[in-house]
Amino acid sequence: MSDDALNPALLPAGLADLLPPDAEREAALVEAMLAVFAGHGYERVRPPLLEFEEGLFAGSGAALAEQTFRLMDPVSQRMMGLRADTTPQVARIAATRLARQSRPLRLCYSGQVLRVRGSQLQPERQLPQAGIELIGGRGPAETVQADAEVALVAAEALDTVGVAPTLDVTLPTLAPALFEAAHLAGPARQRLAHALDRKDAAATAALVAECGRANPIAAPALAPLPALLQAAGLADGALAALEAANLPPAARAIADNAAAVVAAIRARAPGLRVTLDPVEFRGFQYHVGVAFTLYGPGRTGELGRGGRYLSPGDPANTALGRGAGNEPATGMTLYPHAVLRAARPAPLRPRLFLPAGTDPAAARSLRAAGYATVAALSAADTPQSLRCTHVLENGRAVPFGETL
Amino acid sequence: MSDDALNPALLPAGLADLLPPDAEREAALVEAMLAVFAGHGYERVRPPLLEFEEGLFAGSGAALAEQTFRLMDPVSQRMMGLRADTTPQVARIAATRLARQSRPLRLCYSGQVLRVRGSQLQPERQLPQAGIELIGGRGPAETVQADAEVALVAAEALDTVGVAPTLDVTLPTLAPALFEAAHLAGPARQRLAHALDRKDAAATAALVAECGRANPIAAPALAPLPALLQAAGLADGALAALEAANLPPAARAIADNAAAVVAAIRARAPGLRVTLDPVEFRGFQYHVGVAFTLYGPGRTGELGRGGRYLSPGDPANTALGRGAGNEPATGMTLYPHAVLRAARPAPLRPRLFLPAGTDPAAARSLRAAGYATVAALSAADTPQSLRCTHVLENGRAVPFGETL
Repeated sequence: MSDDALNPALLPAGLADLLPPDAEREAALVEAMLAVFAGHGYERVRPPLLEFEEGLFAGSGAALAEQTFRLMDPVSQRMMGLRADTTPQVARIAATRLARQSRPLRLCYSGQVLRVRGSQLQPERQLPQAGIELIGGRGPAETVQADAEVALVAAEALDTVGVAPTLDVTLPTLAPALFEAAHLAGPARQRLAHALDRKDAAATAALVAECGRANPIAAPALAPLPALLQAAGLADGALAALEAANLPPAARAIADNAAAVVAAIRARAPGLRVTLDPVEFRGFQYHVGVAFTLYGPGRTGELGRGGRYLSPGDPANTALGRGAGNEPATGMTLYPHAVLRAARPAPLRPRLFLPAGTDPAAARSLRAAGYATVAALSAADTPQSLRCTHVLENGRAVPFGETL
Repeated sequence: MSDDALNPALLPAGLADLLPPDAEREAALVEAMLAVFAGHGYERVRPPLLEFEEGLFAGSGAALAEQTFRLMDPVSQRMMGLRADTTPQVARIAATRLARQSRPLRLCYSGQVLRVRGSQLQPERQLPQAGIELIGGRGPAETVQADAEVALVAAEALDTVGVAPTLDVTLPTLAPALFEAAHLAGPARQRLAHALDRKDAAATAALVAECGRANPIAAPALAPLPALLQAAGLADGALAALEAANLPPAARAIADNAAAVVAAIRARAPGLRVTLDPVEFRGFQYHVGVAFTLYGPGRTGELGRGGRYLSPGDPANTALGRGAGNEPATGMTLYPHAVLRAARPAPLRPRLFLPAGTDPAAARSLRAAGYATVAALSAADTPQSLRCTHVLENGRAVPFGETL
């Protein structure tokens, strides 16, 4: 065992203590965001940190199976997982305990998730999440409204904590729909997907041309790709490029839906900056419609992510006439640790030094006025040693250092 | 595999979903209690859910080693534990990352803990905790003030969420001090400890008499035990019994310290109901001074627990002149799931039905007025299907059912 192994200050890689004042700031912004969710009728649920793997790995959870810590439950002798994401748990709650509640169902949550390994971009193995799920919805018009609402509520939550977000819309099913229409499969499909992924315009154009020579009948479906790759940017320009493109029917429906969602967002939040990347599909494996990423200003990076997916149904739901199948849903997860870096720092509560023997009623009214009253335990405690910003002078709080 | 194993609604024993409205209510009362802690200068920390076992099992953590889920960290190939208690983590933070901060140090926390097995009394295997630790303090007068402060801040936190608590003080070192003075060891000590534990007055009296016959020189130190066992109850009576008892020096110091702590509590909170059980010591293995339990009214049971302990020091602290040894500390952990059962239910936000196309600005001001605005996604959504309590009538919110 090395010396490091005995150092009590050492934590496992990617696991960290949040210290003052960050821990309080993060908690405050999580509660402020959850209050926005509650204001739009999203009701809070709190699934457990551990549950049987079958539940965690259903639906969208399958993507995170390899990133999930697994434990044997000594009570049931079955394998449990430590959640790596909260959405599959909320889907389980919707499909089971809240199966009989009418749709659409609006739920929200906050809590920690754990991952087996960090990455270079995201070394943290414990991450806070705060999110919403809007489950159910009957037709295309309703899903457009649902998608717009979820994006807007998440953007409003960021706005509330002082972050003006940019909403980036992606259409993860659009490029695959063009691949399908072009009967593109195997290595050719992989190469083209990889070129789009790298945003490599030259390679994309070359591969589209090569496919056209190989299959002159179906491959023209790929022709819009180079222009759509270039169109990524502010939503208006990207939507115009989609409108102008010659798209096969399935892709046209995806583009029209995107235009409707962006229009619904614009109608309710004309000031929100919206971008659109039509052919981006990386990292949205389980999304079946529009997907969203929220960015902060400058280099603050990704603050949240979500989109339309299918929420796994409970087989028992057949009895409710809802079928045993999946339910349409849209969700959005915000990342409070990233939001904390992007948010304006909340002012800290001033710390008022309370000499021994201060009247408890006076201390109470100073706390009600917003001070943290930090009591001296003995004459040895001073405003400095208790890191106080204020002291009492004739019963009033005055900034420390400005006293006579 | 049985049918149960395939039922997605089934969670591992002792792990549960918290549903609406309980999840929001619990979160609200946790934040209200943490605001009380912050008001007294306790700064929030958030240790990770997982860390190396050495850290979790130091000091007071050793008592929970068997109750801690253990996992191999694939990154370091070392064993990690899923915390079963938060106090050892806060002690680690105080001894390492906050080692250079002057004492006393006031820290607070909230979060989930996990236990390998539930018990009949406490079947839950995941429990929320919210607590405070006051670490450091130089002499006996200071520790009395620290003990009183921690008990009072925890009681105030309960009071804030509508629970009038009873503070029960115990002296877990008193009976052992009498055993020591009487040179009582082995089976005789175990029998007497067991009789006290059962609060069996007859057995206690008989065993004390038996010890007196076996060792007439030292055993008289046990003579106060039957009277002290009977004295458990309101603090005044119990303190009078301690005052009247003929105690050996170590036990006298414990009794005098208890009287001083109760007096300090009384001075600041004359209205708080305080009880004292002088010879209770069950469940307080690592406490070195007074210990506290907070009860709610009626049968709501234990809402929190704490007391004076030794916070493990970091060997590296020798360089700071603080010695490598332990630091004196007092802490208190509240149990939000139990507080939720005892607290008056917070009123729920009224749910206002928002027809499609409602002006976003109007909706915003209704949210600011305290309504959850629940938007119809299509004409198929009704106030009933969205479980709304209020609807709009001429732009005003009126209770649903009272409209014309």
